[in-house]
Amino acid sequence: MKSEQDFLDLIDTHFTFGHELLRLGRGDDCAVLAGGRDICVSSDLFLEDVHFRRDYFTAEDIGHKALAVNISDIAAMGARPFAFTMDLMVPPGLDEEFWNGFFQGMATLARHTDMALAGGDLSRADRLGVSISIFGVGGSKGRFLTRGNCAPGDILFTVGELGLARVGLLTLEALGRQAREEFPTAALAHLRPKPKVMIGTLLNAAGVKGLMDVSDGLARDLPRFLGPNLGADLTLRGEMLNGNVVAYALAMGLDPVELTVLGGEDYALLGCVSEEEFPKAASVPGFTEIGRVTEAQGIRINGTPFSTPGFDHFENPQSHP
Amino acid sequence: MKSEQDFLDLIDTHFTFGHELLRLGRGDDCAVLAGGRDICVSSDLFLEDVHFRRDYFTAEDIGHKALAVNISDIAAMGARPFAFTMDLMVPPGLDEEFWNGFFQGMATLARHTDMALAGGDLSRADRLGVSISIFGVGGSKGRFLTRGNCAPGDILFTVGELGLARVGLLTLEALGRQAREEFPTAALAHLRPKPKVMIGTLLNAAGVKGLMDVSDGLARDLPRFLGPNLGADLTLRGEMLNGNVVAYALAMGLDPVELTVLGGEDYALLGCVSEEEFPKAASVPGFTEIGRVTEAQGIRINGTPFSTPGFDHFENPQSHP
Repeated sequence: MKSEQDFLDLIDTHFTFGHELLRLGRGDDCAVLAGGRDICVSSDLFLEDVHFRRDYFTAEDIGHKALAVNISDIAAMGARPFAFTMDLMVPPGLDEEFWNGFFQGMATLARHTDMALAGGDLSRADRLGVSISIFGVGGSKGRFLTRGNCAPGDILFTVGELGLARVGLLTLEALGRQAREEFPTAALAHLRPKPKVMIGTLLNAAGVKGLMDVSDGLARDLPRFLGPNLGADLTLRGEMLNGNVVAYALAMGLDPVELTVLGGEDYALLGCVSEEEFPKAASVPGFTEIGRVTEAQGIRINGTPFSTPGFDHFENPQSHP
Repeated sequence: MKSEQDFLDLIDTHFTFGHELLRLGRGDDCAVLAGGRDICVSSDLFLEDVHFRRDYFTAEDIGHKALAVNISDIAAMGARPFAFTMDLMVPPGLDEEFWNGFFQGMATLARHTDMALAGGDLSRADRLGVSISIFGVGGSKGRFLTRGNCAPGDILFTVGELGLARVGLLTLEALGRQAREEFPTAALAHLRPKPKVMIGTLLNAAGVKGLMDVSDGLARDLPRFLGPNLGADLTLRGEMLNGNVVAYALAMGLDPVELTVLGGEDYALLGCVSEEEFPKAASVPGFTEIGRVTEAQGIRINGTPFSTPGFDHFENPQSHP
């Protein structure tokens, strides 16, 4: 992997070029997205030793997760992704086998979600990193699910495991690759998050009021979802908690509920729905009612006020882990 | 500048939030671009010690150029930018004064080109870096100018200085900030490239056939523009060369024409136009006829075959410089 052309050739063997929503594919000064419908866009960084470690992520894992965290933002709009651009920072010393795996992991996910690679940039760099921008279109009526829109009395719900990826991160940091064998479910939740595009689309069609991607943990993301003028009364007990999270918490002397809501990189969906639309939304696979929106500000969990910051890639150098 | 919120607050003081072509601004899982028209998109990296050096770029220069190189891709489509996303890699040790200058340099250019900041991501990192994705709309009929489309006999032209930014880079690398005073025109061509949005729009309206951003030097970019089956016969003489480039070449014992076509980071526009549309295109400010498209492959300059690679941020660690 010596030249830019080697990379471009390898990329061409992996990634789809065209899409019905792409008027012009990669290779020119710009790609052109087909008009006619509103387009949602999100950009995320995925950097070595901030967001992932090479000693326990395989090349495929890195490629997969770099794209997955972006798809999750599209899913959280109740939208369907169709294309992405990739800015790739290439450090010295990675061989063709690595890059093949990296592109393979990313391209497999791109194919499963029907996405074309629309463009990007390559540069040498000290460390491996990816910046992806991703594009999606809304539900059947072009509707996007934004944050908030909640009213007191609305039902709050999540789809996806809370806290499990955090347990995965903690075990991977402690045990390295060995955690993949000893705690496979948790480790894979961290290494290979599954973005919930189909679920987001179904929730959109079911008429939920608002939806958001839980990436910094429920405790941190719920106030962002509610906005400054509302609170929430949550019930998180027993079967609503992930068994692996409970087992890990008990083994480590931690509180299972706290570990669940602190989470981090859950890539679960958090939403609110009115009583009227609740039955339709509740039929979506994985729908888990977690509580109610309240007029009173602040978060109560199982009857007790709760306030702890969650996970932050930016502020806290110890956040990983 | 300790927390992510400090950054978000500072960003809000600098950057426009709304735009008529933006259905939903930054702050949610995604921004939403208004449909109805095709949208062109480009992504570029701008990394410390690859694309810029902090010892002779001011904070304002870095912010300006990170956005300018992206705008240049929009200009090269004959399009008008309206929004961008910014993924920012934040190293330790930069104070609020730096960030104020950085955002100021970027926001001033964004304001001048009528762009909103639609979203992005922040992460700590070892070195300063920016990945920007930028969005634009086409000419009056939604037309975009792509590469190629040339036929033998078409007139090739450029708008913008070739080789000048390369001289700027060479003098800045040799003299540091001092070059800003001794070679201000060349230094500013490297530090503060001026994207040619208005020119691109005019060329689009004038009916040129193809347009491209010259960022790796004319010698490297012209074959990309022509495609594999065509060549070019160029005439580059006397007043067509930039005076500063000629003076620098003569002082350093270099060939002025070679320095002009090797260039690098020119951010000039390269296009082709038919004989019929030539008079209209030629009235666009800065239009410089440089030669003709030929059926015979290869590039001839002033009657002599020419082949030398240009500037590459990727392959050649010595490229800077």
